[in-house]
Amino acid sequence: MSSNVVNMRDHKQPAADKEAIDRLQAMTADDMQLVNETILKRMDSPVALIPELAGHLISSGGKRLRPMLTLASAKLVGYEGKRHIGLAAAVEFIHTATLLHDDVVDESNMRRGKKTANLIWGNQPTVLVGDFLFSRSFELMVESDSLRVLKILANAAAVITEGEVLQLTTANDLTTSEEKYLEVITAKTAVLFAAACEVVGVVSEQGAEVESGLEAYGRYLGIAFQLVDDALDYSAKQATLGKEIGDDFREGKVTLPTILAYRRGSEEEQKFWKSTMERRKQAEGDLEKAIDLLSQHGTLNDTIERARHYGNMAKDSLAIFRDSPAKKALIDIVDFCVMRAY
Amino acid sequence: MSSNVVNMRDHKQPAADKEAIDRLQAMTADDMQLVNETILKRMDSPVALIPELAGHLISSGGKRLRPMLTLASAKLVGYEGKRHIGLAAAVEFIHTATLLHDDVVDESNMRRGKKTANLIWGNQPTVLVGDFLFSRSFELMVESDSLRVLKILANAAAVITEGEVLQLTTANDLTTSEEKYLEVITAKTAVLFAAACEVVGVVSEQGAEVESGLEAYGRYLGIAFQLVDDALDYSAKQATLGKEIGDDFREGKVTLPTILAYRRGSEEEQKFWKSTMERRKQAEGDLEKAIDLLSQHGTLNDTIERARHYGNMAKDSLAIFRDSPAKKALIDIVDFCVMRAY
Repeated sequence: MSSNVVNMRDHKQPAADKEAIDRLQAMTADDMQLVNETILKRMDSPVALIPELAGHLISSGGKRLRPMLTLASAKLVGYEGKRHIGLAAAVEFIHTATLLHDDVVDESNMRRGKKTANLIWGNQPTVLVGDFLFSRSFELMVESDSLRVLKILANAAAVITEGEVLQLTTANDLTTSEEKYLEVITAKTAVLFAAACEVVGVVSEQGAEVESGLEAYGRYLGIAFQLVDDALDYSAKQATLGKEIGDDFREGKVTLPTILAYRRGSEEEQKFWKSTMERRKQAEGDLEKAIDLLSQHGTLNDTIERARHYGNMAKDSLAIFRDSPAKKALIDIVDFCVMRAY
Repeated sequence: MSSNVVNMRDHKQPAADKEAIDRLQAMTADDMQLVNETILKRMDSPVALIPELAGHLISSGGKRLRPMLTLASAKLVGYEGKRHIGLAAAVEFIHTATLLHDDVVDESNMRRGKKTANLIWGNQPTVLVGDFLFSRSFELMVESDSLRVLKILANAAAVITEGEVLQLTTANDLTTSEEKYLEVITAKTAVLFAAACEVVGVVSEQGAEVESGLEAYGRYLGIAFQLVDDALDYSAKQATLGKEIGDDFREGKVTLPTILAYRRGSEEEQKFWKSTMERRKQAEGDLEKAIDLLSQHGTLNDTIERARHYGNMAKDSLAIFRDSPAKKALIDIVDFCVMRAY
């Protein structure tokens, strides 16, 4: 087996259907226009630094994947009201607030190919503007006039931060079980994907089966998405997406590729992982060696395989819905999320 | 006029009625027991660091003034339900989340005579546990089953952070107008006091007059409270409360005592203020000189006089309620808040 990370291509998978995201975007474009207007209106403030700092990240060309899921779910269930617009904006605000705080917490300098807010304006306003967006997201939820929606989203917000603290405390433990790792990524990523979809089930009042179908779809998609993200962090493909490679390694953030490589490694390899990731003693060439070990043990491929498994579960969660362009788009986006690693 | 800060006593004011706070505590003790149980239950998490870090601040002997206002307001209006308990806990959670983030933002080392969470555990978990408490506060609000209550508290949370960003961007501008300063302290402090009281008016369903009476009481009390806090930061009295003196000066945080001293000062004095507070060039003895100037221009006394004015407005806001032990306690606590400077 080649020691090159791009060995993820060895599986001879079809290339990612890049048009899947375009089709989803086209399908939700009208509603997304309204979501963007809501976002701009609600992040505004007479305190000029707030829209300036928030806008820096919000307008930085993120895919708006989470609000898009809310909008596509509305199409899927044939919802004809307007409450999904504010909820999609609320979901994006929660996500943005989390990113702002993450960048402070991780002392990041770059995100989406731009300097981070904390680098430009410092930690102080970045923490506070995160809080501001958090509060605004709750105001948007309140306007949905549904206490069940509020419960789902408020709980999601609490679980996200709980997951991040859990990650912080278990982050550099190489003996983390796969179960614990799944618990972390479910909390920090998948729960918001799930909520983004589930709330549409609630406001469209189509009963428990629809709600739990949407919830499961979002949750499994979120798990698959994060698994792929964690594999991409060691993949040459990452560079083509405008992101740096090896962030998790440098931060000593243990994810499935390294958990599996540690478990499968020789005694000497385990020493290497312990020294570089747990004790953060890293020298020139260590990242390359780490990527080499991941390749030798095939853990990037296996991580993507896990993602494919959860992706399949996401697709099956949509079985209760009749065929429609929206259903096809939601299924295709699962493949896109999994395949973007190739 | 003496150049000693304790000249705040020159007015021959009666000493603060320290028993006022004891009486309020006694009156709300049974309910506060339930609030404390709710707080402990809701800050709990399988992620052990969360209750550990949150508990460090929450159990650090704060006065619980804000939730106490919620409980006393419930007594005032004769509310017989149970929804004020969760709301009081939500208010304390918002306050605690704000303090955790403030300490990260201000890089503080001490609060309430203890090491701050950021000093003990670092910025990362402190930011995240703040977010966690913020989310939990929203879950508690949601359980109040009242969308109006949610609107009030979610808006308060947004305004608080807006006020803090405003303070950050205007903080070391000595030409800040008194109006702008009032705007900042209303946002960062008084709005939560107001919400803590107003929500009781909503859940007790006693109409708009009761709601706006409670809101005004809380808001004016909050303004008075913050004015006194800002005076105390330069007062020898502060030391007796277990707090360090001169934090605002060191951080270049312009408050009413310095705004007035700058405005009333000679050209030479204005140079001193500009150099020490705007450019943060501070040397040994500068804090003492600053306190001396505040004393010479009587700006600490005048700040307390402003506080007394807003305190009186707080008391008058209660005129619509018939006399009761709760009303007396809420009036006495205004005096306590103003007088604690003496």
